[in-house]
Amino acid sequence: MTSPEEQAYRLLTEYSNGFMVSQVLFAACELGVFDLLAEAPEPLGVAAVAARLGTSSCGTELLLDTCVSLKLLQVQTRRGKALYQNTELASTYLVRASPKCQGNMLRYLARTTYLCWGHLAQAVRDGKNQYLEAFGVPSDELFSAIYRSEGERLQVMRGLQDIWSISGRHVLAAFDLSPFPLICDIGGCSGALAKECTSLYPGCRVTVFDIPEVVQMAKKHFSFLEEARISFCEGDFFKDPLPEADLYILARILHDWTDARCSHLLARIHHACKPGGGVLVIESLLDADGRGPLTTQLYSLNMLVQTEGRERTPAQYLALLAPAGFQDFQCRRTGGIYDAILARR
Amino acid sequence: MTSPEEQAYRLLTEYSNGFMVSQVLFAACELGVFDLLAEAPEPLGVAAVAARLGTSSCGTELLLDTCVSLKLLQVQTRRGKALYQNTELASTYLVRASPKCQGNMLRYLARTTYLCWGHLAQAVRDGKNQYLEAFGVPSDELFSAIYRSEGERLQVMRGLQDIWSISGRHVLAAFDLSPFPLICDIGGCSGALAKECTSLYPGCRVTVFDIPEVVQMAKKHFSFLEEARISFCEGDFFKDPLPEADLYILARILHDWTDARCSHLLARIHHACKPGGGVLVIESLLDADGRGPLTTQLYSLNMLVQTEGRERTPAQYLALLAPAGFQDFQCRRTGGIYDAILARR
Repeated sequence: MTSPEEQAYRLLTEYSNGFMVSQVLFAACELGVFDLLAEAPEPLGVAAVAARLGTSSCGTELLLDTCVSLKLLQVQTRRGKALYQNTELASTYLVRASPKCQGNMLRYLARTTYLCWGHLAQAVRDGKNQYLEAFGVPSDELFSAIYRSEGERLQVMRGLQDIWSISGRHVLAAFDLSPFPLICDIGGCSGALAKECTSLYPGCRVTVFDIPEVVQMAKKHFSFLEEARISFCEGDFFKDPLPEADLYILARILHDWTDARCSHLLARIHHACKPGGGVLVIESLLDADGRGPLTTQLYSLNMLVQTEGRERTPAQYLALLAPAGFQDFQCRRTGGIYDAILARR
Repeated sequence: MTSPEEQAYRLLTEYSNGFMVSQVLFAACELGVFDLLAEAPEPLGVAAVAARLGTSSCGTELLLDTCVSLKLLQVQTRRGKALYQNTELASTYLVRASPKCQGNMLRYLARTTYLCWGHLAQAVRDGKNQYLEAFGVPSDELFSAIYRSEGERLQVMRGLQDIWSISGRHVLAAFDLSPFPLICDIGGCSGALAKECTSLYPGCRVTVFDIPEVVQMAKKHFSFLEEARISFCEGDFFKDPLPEADLYILARILHDWTDARCSHLLARIHHACKPGGGVLVIESLLDADGRGPLTTQLYSLNMLVQTEGRERTPAQYLALLAPAGFQDFQCRRTGGIYDAILARR
């Protein structure tokens, strides 16, 4: 029998050890545990894993056994020797060769987000992001801080690819977008969401609009040459002319910015939008009272720590869209992390 | 309906966001949210909390609402205004005035352990702690790194007080220690466990043995003058003479050290121990196969990242105790985080 007080202590312990669980996952990915086990023709023992990864055997054994408890690995004992292999979870989401691999996103969380969150208390005090404290870079120009090196920019772009490989198709299917033949993905980065879009809607063409550094990197590192229906357009969506389109997608864009900047951007989109056209906002939506879901609340705190924005409720998005001239709002919760709001010019 | 693949993705998201949950708890403690709400005569709104803590209102609202989702706070709405108060969990474990407050332990986790764990992958590579990488201090002398400033030493000592305020009495009651009138708590730090011991066993006297810097700080910051049955003795347990005793307690000591250092210490204790006496090892015990409980596995990785040791199975402790000359082993799992092994000279 466990008393309520003991249960509360267990919950507290779970929360306070949460960062350890994250780091077990991050470290196992970084060291290449899941890739090694995926490539090996049969389950491997501790000594083999440690030898091939160049890691200590004591640390490796501990890490592997903790991964077993977290259901990232499974173990069997043959002739007294423990042999490890990936679980379905790891095979699907943690192995580089899997199309749903989240390795880049996890690496970004491990190397960047984890450090920013070490300054959460100060971010709550200041009401602003902590790039200066975490990385010594000013954040007056937000994306100069986010993309502070070429390597970091590539990491962000790859992380977003991972996210849309899971959620992209689902959230683009929340509404029937086939009436919109010409789509512009504002801040569309590497084109990952555009690719899901052309795959789901064979009749559409997508222009990915992003800053020159991102577009150049997209062309260099992410091959979309085979997809004739995707094109790239360079510019700053706060000041340069926006491509003409029937539908503008804003996926994980508004959550980076203050209400004022969002309003400015939405007014520009309304101005560029064809008659009968619309805007599709893709974000993780807070509940109406702002008190859930927990994942979205954490992401909203992440916006506090890493951007100028926040996650919002449907009503808060509506309050941004309506004054910009949009109407006929429809909101679809997908049951996944990302939801969709469609509004018409 | 959620598919197994979607369930796996949710679990992965929970793991990857674990550090965010930890930091919400740490930040709310550091900012004084729970103390403020405990001291206020009635539930407070966001504006009042932000004003009294000197925090931004947007950050404060987000933090409070996330604490509601984590069951650290509860909220009620009066005349359209959200008012927050502590839950039982927070009142018991997060309010400074509570005898079970874990605030110091959480602060240590937030400021020290969190940073060390940012180097977990490297610790697994090296098979050793990461003080040099995390704090720029060498760790050849382990406790010079752990106690690297007076403030840090005090923080560690206060953190241990928090731990024994929860687990001390329970684990000391696992065996009837009344046959041992004279007890020596090796590395007993501030005397927190000694205090639980004299309270539980009215017939015993306890000598707390620790290095001079710790004993001096214990006398300065932790008042035990009222407890005549607790005394302090200064020394290095690896080389200075140990006080004579009927029972030696080793609570969270062996897990800091290599097998070789543990064997050396246990041999010294055996030598000092009175005939008929014994040793009580208090640690978080791994399951026999080393693959659970998860909490203990995480603590074992924490030993990798922060010490020279590891958590061990009962058989591994037996393998250290027996060659040192101890016998009649008894192991008691308490159901809490810390367990007990009693052995006789």
